[in-house]
Order: sequence, then C-alpha cells, then structure tokens
Amino acid sequence: MFQSYETRSEPEKGPARLAALRKQMVTEGLQGFIVPRADVHQGEYVTERDARLGWLTGFQGSAGFCVSLEDTAGVFIDGRYTVQVKSQVDLEHFTPVAWPVNHAGDWINEQASQKAVVGFDPWLHTLADVEKTDAILGRGGRSLRACENLIDRIWVDQPSAPQVKAFAHPVEFAGETHAQKRSRMAQILHEAGEDHAVITLPDSICWLLNIRGHDVNHNPIVQALAILHSDGCVDLFAHPEKLVDVQDHLGDDVTCHPQDDFAKALAQLGGTVRVDPATAPFAVASVLEATGSEISRNPDPCILPKAIKNEVELEGMRQAHLRDGAAMAEFLCWLSDEAPKGGQSEISIAQKLEGFRRATNALYDISFETISATGPHAPICHYRVTENTNLPVESGQVLLVDSGGQYKDGTTDITRTVAVGAVGLEEKQCFTRVLQGMIALSRARWPAGLSGRDLDPIARYPIWLAGHDFDHGTGHGVGAFLSVHEGPARISKVSEIPLEPGMILSNEPGYYREGKFGIRIENLVAVQQAGALAGADARDMLDFETLTFTPIDRNMIIVEMLSEGEKSWLNAYHAKTYALLADVVSEATQNWLMDACAAL
Amino acid sequence: MFQSYETRSEPEKGPARLAALRKQMVTEGLQGFIVPRADVHQGEYVTERDARLGWLTGFQGSAGFCVSLEDTAGVFIDGRYTVQVKSQVDLEHFTPVAWPVNHAGDWINEQASQKAVVGFDPWLHTLADVEKTDAILGRGGRSLRACENLIDRIWVDQPSAPQVKAFAHPVEFAGETHAQKRSRMAQILHEAGEDHAVITLPDSICWLLNIRGHDVNHNPIVQALAILHSDGCVDLFAHPEKLVDVQDHLGDDVTCHPQDDFAKALAQLGGTVRVDPATAPFAVASVLEATGSEISRNPDPCILPKAIKNEVELEGMRQAHLRDGAAMAEFLCWLSDEAPKGGQSEISIAQKLEGFRRATNALYDISFETISATGPHAPICHYRVTENTNLPVESGQVLLVDSGGQYKDGTTDITRTVAVGAVGLEEKQCFTRVLQGMIALSRARWPAGLSGRDLDPIARYPIWLAGHDFDHGTGHGVGAFLSVHEGPARISKVSEIPLEPGMILSNEPGYYREGKFGIRIENLVAVQQAGALAGADARDMLDFETLTFTPIDRNMIIVEMLSEGEKSWLNAYHAKTYALLADVVSEATQNWLMDACAAL
Repeated sequence: MFQSYETRSEPEKGPARLAALRKQMVTEGLQGFIVPRADVHQGEYVTERDARLGWLTGFQGSAGFCVSLEDTAGVFIDGRYTVQVKSQVDLEHFTPVAWPVNHAGDWINEQASQKAVVGFDPWLHTLADVEKTDAILGRGGRSLRACENLIDRIWVDQPSAPQVKAFAHPVEFAGETHAQKRSRMAQILHEAGEDHAVITLPDSICWLLNIRGHDVNHNPIVQALAILHSDGCVDLFAHPEKLVDVQDHLGDDVTCHPQDDFAKALAQLGGTVRVDPATAPFAVASVLEATGSEISRNPDPCILPKAIKNEVELEGMRQAHLRDGAAMAEFLCWLSDEAPKGGQSEISIAQKLEGFRRATNALYDISFETISATGPHAPICHYRVTENTNLPVESGQVLLVDSGGQYKDGTTDITRTVAVGAVGLEEKQCFTRVLQGMIALSRARWPAGLSGRDLDPIARYPIWLAGHDFDHGTGHGVGAFLSVHEGPARISKVSEIPLEPGMILSNEPGYYREGKFGIRIENLVAVQQAGALAGADARDMLDFETLTFTPIDRNMIIVEMLSEGEKSWLNAYHAKTYALLADVVSEATQNWLMDACAAL
Repeated sequence: MFQSYETRSEPEKGPARLAALRKQMVTEGLQGFIVPRADVHQGEYVTERDARLGWLTGFQGSAGFCVSLEDTAGVFIDGRYTVQVKSQVDLEHFTPVAWPVNHAGDWINEQASQKAVVGFDPWLHTLADVEKTDAILGRGGRSLRACENLIDRIWVDQPSAPQVKAFAHPVEFAGETHAQKRSRMAQILHEAGEDHAVITLPDSICWLLNIRGHDVNHNPIVQALAILHSDGCVDLFAHPEKLVDVQDHLGDDVTCHPQDDFAKALAQLGGTVRVDPATAPFAVASVLEATGSEISRNPDPCILPKAIKNEVELEGMRQAHLRDGAAMAEFLCWLSDEAPKGGQSEISIAQKLEGFRRATNALYDISFETISATGPHAPICHYRVTENTNLPVESGQVLLVDSGGQYKDGTTDITRTVAVGAVGLEEKQCFTRVLQGMIALSRARWPAGLSGRDLDPIARYPIWLAGHDFDHGTGHGVGAFLSVHEGPARISKVSEIPLEPGMILSNEPGYYREGKFGIRIENLVAVQQAGALAGADARDMLDFETLTFTPIDRNMIIVEMLSEGEKSWLNAYHAKTYALLADVVSEATQNWLMDACAAL
C-alpha cells in the first residue's frame, strides 16, 4: 500500500533531543538555533533524512519551524495546526507560537538574552527569509549566524538521502522536449540580461528536463539542484546513482555532477546569475557574492511556464481524470452499499479506495495521503488517520474523503463528502451552500487579467450569506504528474497572479463545524479561453473546463435551495459524468451511476 | 435651476491659445508646459477660474491634462473620455493620448526635443506626481522645472476666485463638534510623532471644521487650505470675506488668515510636518524643505475618519434619502404617464426631476449634473446633455437617469433605468442581469477585513455569465452633505481599503451596448455589523444597510431569470419602499407606487 497509518510523532523523545541541541549551541557559542521543516529544495514534502523538525519536536505538520533558545523553544505553526500541535509536542518543553501572525524575529527579540546570536543552516532557509529575520533581529540588538546544521550533528541514526533512480517523462506526456523547454527558459534569461539561473526547486528541474523520480512520497520528483545557462545548457547536481537511467534522455547539453559539487560550481560561475529570493537557499547567494558573481533577483524562470499546461499535458490530465473518476465511482458505489451496514472505519475506507485506484493498473502513487474523516474528524482540514485515531464510520454521519492519484499522464485531486445513511438537515443545508459556491466558480466566466483573489469571493458568497466561511483557500494549482500543490496561481484571498489559459486549479470550497461535521467538495478545473456565446461582448474572457467527473452525493442536496442555473449545471455535470464513465465501470457501478447521476 | 444645458467647449479657440502658450514657453526658456485639470485642492470639481485645461483645449472632462511641447500637444484622457474628447478639441492641434496607460513622462521622452525642460505650476501638481514624472524624464535626459502658471499669464479674462460665504454645518447634522474632531486628529499626529499636518483637500477641511460653502457647483465645499497642529489648533487660509459668517462657529482655536499667507506660514512651521504626497501640492514640500521642516509622508489624517460616518450622519443620510426617494417617486410616476406620450426630451426630463427635488423645499443643490440619457446616449457613462445633444425621449427606448440631491442632512446619488413604452427582450435580459448583480451586492454578508476589491466580483458575476462586463467601478464612497465622490473606499478592482461600519458607498453595476442602449441601477448602501443570524458562525461579519428607496422598474425585469432569493430581496425592497414613501407622496404617486412596488 502507498499509505501507512502508523503514529509517527514521538513527543516523548523531544526533551532529551532538545537538551542535546542546546549543548551543541553552547559549544558553538550560540544562544539559539532555528530548525525548519524545509529542506534545501523548500518543497512541501521532505525525505526522512530532512524531517529534522519532526525528529526534534514530534510535530508532523507540513509547515513550521522550531526556534530553540537557551530557556525556551517555540514551535511556530499556522492556523491549520493549532489543534494538532498540542498532541504532537511535549508542551512542558515546547511552546506553540501562532505563525505567521508572529514573526520569528520579533519572538526572538522578546525571548532571547540580550545580544543573542542565533544559528541557522544556510542551505535550509531562503535568502528572503534570512534577510527579513536578520533585519528584525538587528533592531533588537540580536543577530543571525550561518553555521553547520546542529541537528545533523546530534541525530545519530539520521537516515541517508534517498537514491531512487530517476526516469524520463516522455514527450508523449510532456508535450515539449527538454531541449525546447531549455531553449525557452534561456530566452527568458537572455531578455533579462542574465548569464545563468540557479534552480533549486525539484519540480522546476523535473519539468525543465522532463524527468521524474521517487525521492519523496506521493510527489514523483527527483531531488536535485541545477544551473541553467543562457545558452540553454544545464548543469545538474544529484547523487550519480539516481541519474544512471536518464543519461541518454538528458543528452549532451545537460551535464550531470555529484550533488556535493554544487557549491563549487556556483563559486566558478561569474557573470550575472538569477537567484529567486523566495526559493533559493541563503547559502547560494553567499557563495555567489563571495566569488564575484552579480546576483539578479528574479523568480525561478520555470515556475510560470510549468503552471501553464500545454495541450498534451491537458489531454493527459483529462485521461487521468477519467481513469480516476471511474475508480472513484467504483469506490462510491461500494461505499453506498457497505458503509450504512457498519463495520467500516476511516482506515478501511481509505484502503479500499486505494485498492480501486490500484486496480486501474496505471496508478504510480497516490498524490497525497488520503484524508478519510468521519463526523468530528472532518473539520480538521489536514486530518491524517492513524491506528490511534481511527473512527468507525457510522450511519447518520457525514464522511469526507479527499484523495488523488499520480498517473504518468496526470495528477488528480478530488474531495467528495457523502451521507452515510440518513443525515441531519443542518448538514444538508451546509452541504448545499458549499455546492452552490463550487458550482458558482465552475460556471464562472470573467475578463482576462483577473487573479485567483478576484474569483475567491464567488465561491464563498453563498456560504457567507449564511454567516459561514472556511479558513482555507478555495483552490490551489496542480502539476501534471508532479506536485499536487503547485504555484504560482491559487484561488485565494492572497493570490495576485493573473489566471492564464492552461493553468490547472482545484475548486474546493468547504464548511467546518468544529467537533461536529465537515464538508468539502472538490473538482479540478483548467483555465481556458471562454467559448463563443450569443450576445456576448467582444471581450477577452476566460472560463474553466472541469476535469473531474465523479457524482456529487444527491442525498446531501436540498434541491429547493438551488437556483435553476445551479440545477442545470449539476444535471449537465452528472449527465456528462454518466456518459463518460458508464462504459468503463463494473455493471454494479453502472447501475449505481445511473441513480447517482439522475437529474434533480 | 441648478443645472445648465449650454455647450461649454470652445474647441475653435484652442489653436490660438496654444500658440500664445508656446510664446510664453519660449520667453521662459521652456520646451514644454503641463496644464492639468486639477486646482490646488486636487478636487474633482474646479471653479471657472481654475478651468485652465478646458480653456486651453476645449476638453470638458473631469480628469486629464495637456502637455504642450514645441511641435505637439497631448491631451491625456482616460477610457471614459475617448469618445468625448474627439468632439471637444481641435484634432489638428491636439492629440488625444490614452491615460494612465501612457505616462506623461514616457510620452515627453518620446516626443520632446533632447534635453527638453518642461515647466509646471508647483501648486497644481501633487508631490507624488511630480516625483514620478521627474524620475521618468531623468531617464530620458529631460527635466521638469517649477515656474509661474503660464496659462494665468495669457488668460486675459480669467474669472476671479469665488468668494461665497461659508456657513456652519451644525452638530445636529455633523454629530461631532469640530473641537472633538480636531482633538481626534491631533491624537493621530501625536501618535505619529508629528507636530503639524498640512491639509489641502477642501472636503477634509470642511469635515474637520464643520463648515460648508458653495465655491464649486454641486459640492458644498469651501475652498481653503489649513495647517492642523498637534495641540488641536488649526490655522485656516481663505479669502477673508468667505469666513465672516463662521468666525463665532470656529472659535478661538481656529485662526483665520488670508489665503495668500499660506506659503509664508509653511515657511515658519519647523518641526515634523505631515504631508500627504498623493494630495499635497509639490510647492508645499518645496517650501517646507527649503525652510528646514522635516516632512513626514502620511495620508491626510481626515480622509479615513471622514469616510466613517457617525450615527447622526447616518440618520441624516437616511432622512435625506427618504425625502429624495419621495421626489424620485413623484418623478417616476410623472415619467410613466408622460414619457410614452412623446414630446419629452433628455433636458425636459432632467428639468422636471430637478423641479420635484426643489419642491421638497430642502434641496441645497443637486449633487451633480443629472445624467439624462436615452437610447444611444446612455452608453456614454459621463454623458452631459446640452442643447446641442438633446434627444427626444421616444416610446420603445430605455431611459437612464443618474442624479442626486445635496440636502443639509445628507447627499444622495441614485440611478434608475426605465422602459419608455414597450422595449426589446435583449434590453430586458441585460437589465435583469444588472439587477441580479445589484441585488447580490445588496444581500452580501462578508468577513470583516475585506476591501471593495473583494466585493466587486459579486456584483459582476451575473453580468460576466452572459459574456458582458462594464468598464467602471461598482461603487464609490459618498460624503455626508459633502462630495458625492468621496475616498478612500470604493467597490472596484483597485480598491484595497478595508470596508468599515459607517462607510457609505454606491452600488451601481451597469451594462452598455455602444450606440444602442445603456443600463445602470444604483442605490447607496452603508456598511454595518451584520445582524444576528440563526446558525451563523461566531465570526465578525459585515453587511450593507440600503439607504435608497425608490422603485426599480418592473417592466424591465424578466422574472423567470431571478432566483427565489433574488425575488425575495426585490419584493422586500419594494414593500419597504412602499411603506416608507406611500404617506409622503401625492395621491397620484401613491397609486402608482402601489403598482410599482407590487410583489413579483
């Protein structure tokens, strides 16, 4: 199985590890040390080797960091993890700190001794982060100092870095050769007057060179570092064993080096070097500055082009979604039969779903750990079921299942919330409002140039009308057989990146009643030029193509709350779902599908 | 009458005036001179004396400027005026330039001779504008030079500045004495570590000192300049005759000076002086810098407090709107009888409406020149009817009337679009979608902290669905017996100011089919804490109180397009309109009102 259900956190080991860290601080003459969740690549997922924050504190969230001072240690976590952190760290030794409301620099200025010097590993923090924290500390008379990683010094049984072999992502799926991509990116450097670009994000490198790997769970990436030159050539830095199968694919214009040679190569660059302050490690800028290169602060050139999928990638995503939709239909059919009988649990359901996806014979991995959450667990937006938390699924409950698959032609991410047996009126009312928000965004048509921030209110409006809201973005970008959370565009209050045709995003409004029930409905959608429409203005307008086809539970819908426009959209969606899936599912599921997709 | 209908533009006089200006440029050793629409106060309306742009070019729009160079003269105008400018300037001598797409600095760099020096009047341009233009010119080897106003030198019969007497705005309407306001503003300076603030916006000064006047048409402002001190005292600069009636009201803590003493007073200030770069003339900063004051760049302290109306102002606005709504109802009743018979024109209708407002015996002025636009004139958003453009109003046409009144307790602004006789299906469909947008915003409830930008898409969504949009903001702030366009909050793509309880805004989506018809529906609304709602989250949410009550033409609505929620809102709105107005209108209008407000 791709998913495991063991409890990973070891909060009881935290105090001793923290004491060992503080001994190292004394040895180094430091009054503090920062332990981030991040690795050198700043990715959302880290390898076991890089799980330093979890090892030290017990905290298992996907973002955050610990600042260890002489007498106190703050674990900085965002709103998603305020509940979770309490059960994963020893609260006598670690103090949760709300973040980003509180900046680490301000907190250190309040908590640390005067003139405290705080150490950090310059490869694990971005240039922008270090500069900001350093400026704040300077105002308080404290300072940062780059140093060796003190956790690596005390973590005796630290796992080694993964050395899984990378493989080529063929042009049949990528739609563009890596030579073409390198040439496009070189043109970007050329126009910016830059000689080289440092690229440290693995999904940028994988996209650019059309390679994939398996260094972290669920994201088919290769952990590597790269330097792109303005002639289109690339120097690639990774453990040599990882690249043996892709040498031919990479060809002569991509030169492979051991990862340890990266800093040396930076030192020899010279000229003007593009460095993305938001993603590049502080150490990259330090080396370049010390060796006389001129730093040009600009975003990683691959980020935007990667987000704009080409026709081949879009078609791959459509195929992956049909396959995944059929597996979801088999699962939902099974669930509608089995769940009301009792005997199922959050884990058994997630396992069953993984089984249906594996039965496609095309599943490379799940795209993240399935969130299988019933009743009171569903309001915990990033709930990960373990053997310790596993709840039985009972009739009368609302079950939320957020899951996805990695297929070689595309990545899926879908949430369905279903009624197990008969559920209460309030749950249905809330579900219907979330559905209205999700439909409103699905139907949206808007003038080109707007960003996700401008569309976010459209999904929330029906939910706001009831005095409700949800505390996460409405949608995130999704990669093509790459990261399921991909920048730069999002549908959220803070996203200012204009939406462009080819971008793939999730559409996932929700509603959460703490301790009671949680609702989320999620489809993936692709931005496209809006089609012709009688009577429309001669304006450049965009809309969404829906990629996900899986029934939305009719038992959760209060039909009278829907407008004619909303009903038409849902009926058309279900009719298309039936048309696309009926012939590729089992007979039992086909029968179920007919009911599940019937017009309201 | 408050409104006149003569043609003001004199494009035929432009070439000779431009030639005279160029002679002055030669005398001064300048290769260019900038003539802005703005006066020293940067208000939306200027006096006859300050209408330099119109005098030179013929252009009568409410924003723009002319850059006269040796061989060419650019008239910079925004999207609202691209059509209008063509009929108001001599196109052989003046070249319209789209703005703000093109910045004056870039245009000068392209068009002016090498090393050209361009003159400007330092009292008519803001600090921020001058700095930005100067930086751009510097890159092109050109420069700006502050100088005397060359237009004032050649405009022989330039009118003199108005000297209308100011009057007190009593605390029964203002809700707060000027001593209280001065003390609040002084506290703001105190917290910012500032000794003085320069205030050059007339509506800030009128709000701060609870005075009103009549220096420009339709806006009850006093043109004056002021220095607020951190002890709450104010030095006020204006023509002495204007202030004779308010000396007692102003009291001992407000010292009046002739306007000409303003620069001298600035020169003597010393200490730290707040200057709003976006509104203060460049000359203010020049004088302060030359005389050793320290400039603190911060917004005019009155702008935000003025926008947040107190309970007394809100109640005044409600009363003004009931009075105005009754006059509008009389007008619409008359219109429904008379317009289909023929014989009415855009002007006769505007005059009749002004008559109904005057009949209230409480009208101080109209709040802007009524936009009375039938058929093809309505898509010209800022259409001003003149004797030359006046169209007959004919059956089968859609008539748009955008108007408002200045009453001593409040300012109104309302647009109604009505069918004259039977109109086409497409007009009704477009009207119904605009109505849906207007209703969506009226019903909105949202988490506190959002800005107008976040609500703008809610009003546009139903219009976007048809492939339509409108090229103006959805709403603007409105003053309380002050400017009908008031900052800082707006409902627009570019407004980032959080909405706060007490702010009054217009809600006016529209749709315009060039050469055919135009639709706009406008109510004023006040931001308030959202009321209790069963089942709502414990969140701080805001919503709108509607202030405007006047029927929305049922003959323009396609009922089947409305959702139940939209229909309920409209029926409740009409029922309340009837309840509020029935007893205060004539018997004929009462009967009309019963039909106009009947449930759909």
